[in-house]
Amino acid sequence: KKSCKITVLPGDGIGPEIMESAIEVLKAISKKYGINFEFHEALIGGAAIDATGDPLPEETLKLAKESDAVLLAAVGGEKWDNLPTDRRPEKGLLKIRKELDLFANLRPGKAYTALLDASPLKENLIKGVDLLVIRELTGGIYFGEPRGIEERNGEKVGYNTMIYYEHEIKRIAKLAFDIARNRRKKVTSVDKANVLEVSAVWREIVTEVHAEYQDVELEHMYVDNCAMQLVRRPKDFDVIVTGNLFGDILSDEAGALTGSLGMLPSASIGERYALYEPVHGSAPDIAGQGIANPIAMILSAAMMLEITCKLPEAARDIENAIDKVLEEGYRTGDIWAPGTKKVSTKEMTKAIIKYI
Amino acid sequence: KKSCKITVLPGDGIGPEIMESAIEVLKAISKKYGINFEFHEALIGGAAIDATGDPLPEETLKLAKESDAVLLAAVGGEKWDNLPTDRRPEKGLLKIRKELDLFANLRPGKAYTALLDASPLKENLIKGVDLLVIRELTGGIYFGEPRGIEERNGEKVGYNTMIYYEHEIKRIAKLAFDIARNRRKKVTSVDKANVLEVSAVWREIVTEVHAEYQDVELEHMYVDNCAMQLVRRPKDFDVIVTGNLFGDILSDEAGALTGSLGMLPSASIGERYALYEPVHGSAPDIAGQGIANPIAMILSAAMMLEITCKLPEAARDIENAIDKVLEEGYRTGDIWAPGTKKVSTKEMTKAIIKYI
Ligand SMILES: CC(C)[C@H](C(=O)O)[C@@H](O)C(=O)O
Ligand SMILES: CC(C)[C@H](C(=O)O)[C@@H](O)C(=O)O
Repeated sequence: KKSCKITVLPGDGIGPEIMESAIEVLKAISKKYGINFEFHEALIGGAAIDATGDPLPEETLKLAKESDAVLLAAVGGEKWDNLPTDRRPEKGLLKIRKELDLFANLRPGKAYTALLDASPLKENLIKGVDLLVIRELTGGIYFGEPRGIEERNGEKVGYNTMIYYEHEIKRIAKLAFDIARNRRKKVTSVDKANVLEVSAVWREIVTEVHAEYQDVELEHMYVDNCAMQLVRRPKDFDVIVTGNLFGDILSDEAGALTGSLGMLPSASIGERYALYEPVHGSAPDIAGQGIANPIAMILSAAMMLEITCKLPEAARDIENAIDKVLEEGYRTGDIWAPGTKKVSTKEMTKAIIKYI
Repeated sequence: KKSCKITVLPGDGIGPEIMESAIEVLKAISKKYGINFEFHEALIGGAAIDATGDPLPEETLKLAKESDAVLLAAVGGEKWDNLPTDRRPEKGLLKIRKELDLFANLRPGKAYTALLDASPLKENLIKGVDLLVIRELTGGIYFGEPRGIEERNGEKVGYNTMIYYEHEIKRIAKLAFDIARNRRKKVTSVDKANVLEVSAVWREIVTEVHAEYQDVELEHMYVDNCAMQLVRRPKDFDVIVTGNLFGDILSDEAGALTGSLGMLPSASIGERYALYEPVHGSAPDIAGQGIANPIAMILSAAMMLEITCKLPEAARDIENAIDKVLEEGYRTGDIWAPGTKKVSTKEMTKAIIKYI
């Protein structure tokens, strides 16, 4: 019997509620596909700060390194917003990405036919959108040195360094082309090479790597233009590959197009480890009410089944179940519209499991 | 008789065509309002590179410094795309902004009732949108040092520095609050303070400046969230103030929402000088055909009339003329739709002048 050891990090806010949903779904998958999941829960984010003072305790990291995959729900909340940058919940997230060398963040943006009304875009623009933002996750300005806050000539100054090394660009570019080969064979590399040296190097290396992928189309686009074209013609994108900061911005923008943040999963992968988490945050305003949308979390678990557990059928199974449930009109509050059935986190989860 | 000395920089691509339109309109304004314009043409961008090797010749800069305002059309084109970063047409643009100390870039994003169909957004979301992105223009990662491309441990590396000084943040924050006072009294300051030190300082200083503007509401927003909310609920924004790079991205995204790039003007202002230019680029693909949309350029001239020439009535006059012409169905190719009248650059210009 196949087995998969999973570190479970519920985190803050609605985290624990949606994690429970994902685990329920995985248990159903376990029965159907005869795969065995071992779940090990640990602390991260605000919950970890409250318990240990550290947003990513050593114990959590150790556990993660001994697992096949990490499932993370969400971190952060107002309660910890006034801590200095390096002791905030987000630091736990940044540190686990870095420590596990999760250099690539995959964020699919797909339009659900049942949810076209929820999209801010006109229907003809959003229908059929199926793109994937691949964001570099362990480099760029998020981790660049030097960085700091200091006084110069009697005034305050803050600075960060956006930096990319050849090997960092190479590996993410390769991944993007490899993934594009199994999709519509188009990669849009996004940078600001008309202004930034770091982008000029990015563009050069991506172009070099492309030489070995002549069956895939490569287009370069400036980040400002991409922010614009995503809104104007999202269907034209297949795979977008870009740096950490640009990817943060563009993947959220692309996500917004599809209508609900509560539907967007992500996978963060490296050579050895992988972490799966929804794109949305911890939504403290609705935490504890049992009304959060568990779908992004469940779809993140589906990405885990496909990428880490090598069970693409199980992933498709979950996706199809979600399609059906949406078609039947089940909606959590965030995606509810007149004429559909408003359900709780638990009801939504049950409905999905029914189809697995 | 009032007089205004203007440096005219047609630049590349469609630049000369749309500049001609703006000058025609200004001549009509001159007659009606008894103001005298002195136009002095000079070189910038690719045109300047071809003629002198320099994207911003000394002569152009000198002329600009002796003028009341600079009108710029557009720079750049494929022809110059393979030059190194510091000898490209864009460098002329960056240098003139820096040399004239144009620290604030104002980019209005307004929905035209006649063009709601052209917006990618659903009508209820876009109707009534009236926001202004105020982008810091002479600091941040665009100009930060150190920057460069070099070899480290045998591999290529590119890097840039995102840096903000207290005084840079202060002056742009003040401007944002001052402008918001004459609008809907709300400022959204955008940063990435949960990750970047430069943003932590940004947020701190903006909050400090806000103490003197308690009649204006201040909200802080992370850049990824802003990229998302612009698409979801653009009407909630009044004034957005942010750094150079974030402003580049967000102002283009906000611009895309309204439907046509060909309609978006901008003003770049400092203590002493001011430069007015459309947001769109030089569109080499349609250059020389007489079909470019001159409206963004004409609206940029209107911003000049209001801000530099202190003739707000003249600016309103132009805006109203454009509204009328759009209502009558005149459209250049970029905003044409079935049932409207497709016109050339010159025809559009004439139609606008008719109403002045
Ligand atoms: C919470 C924050 C540090 C994080 C990021 O910027 O990477 C988040 O926005 C994300 O995209 O996962
Ligand atoms: C052409 C380019 C250098 C410029 C910028 O990034 O500032 C442009 O995108 C703009 O926004 O005016």
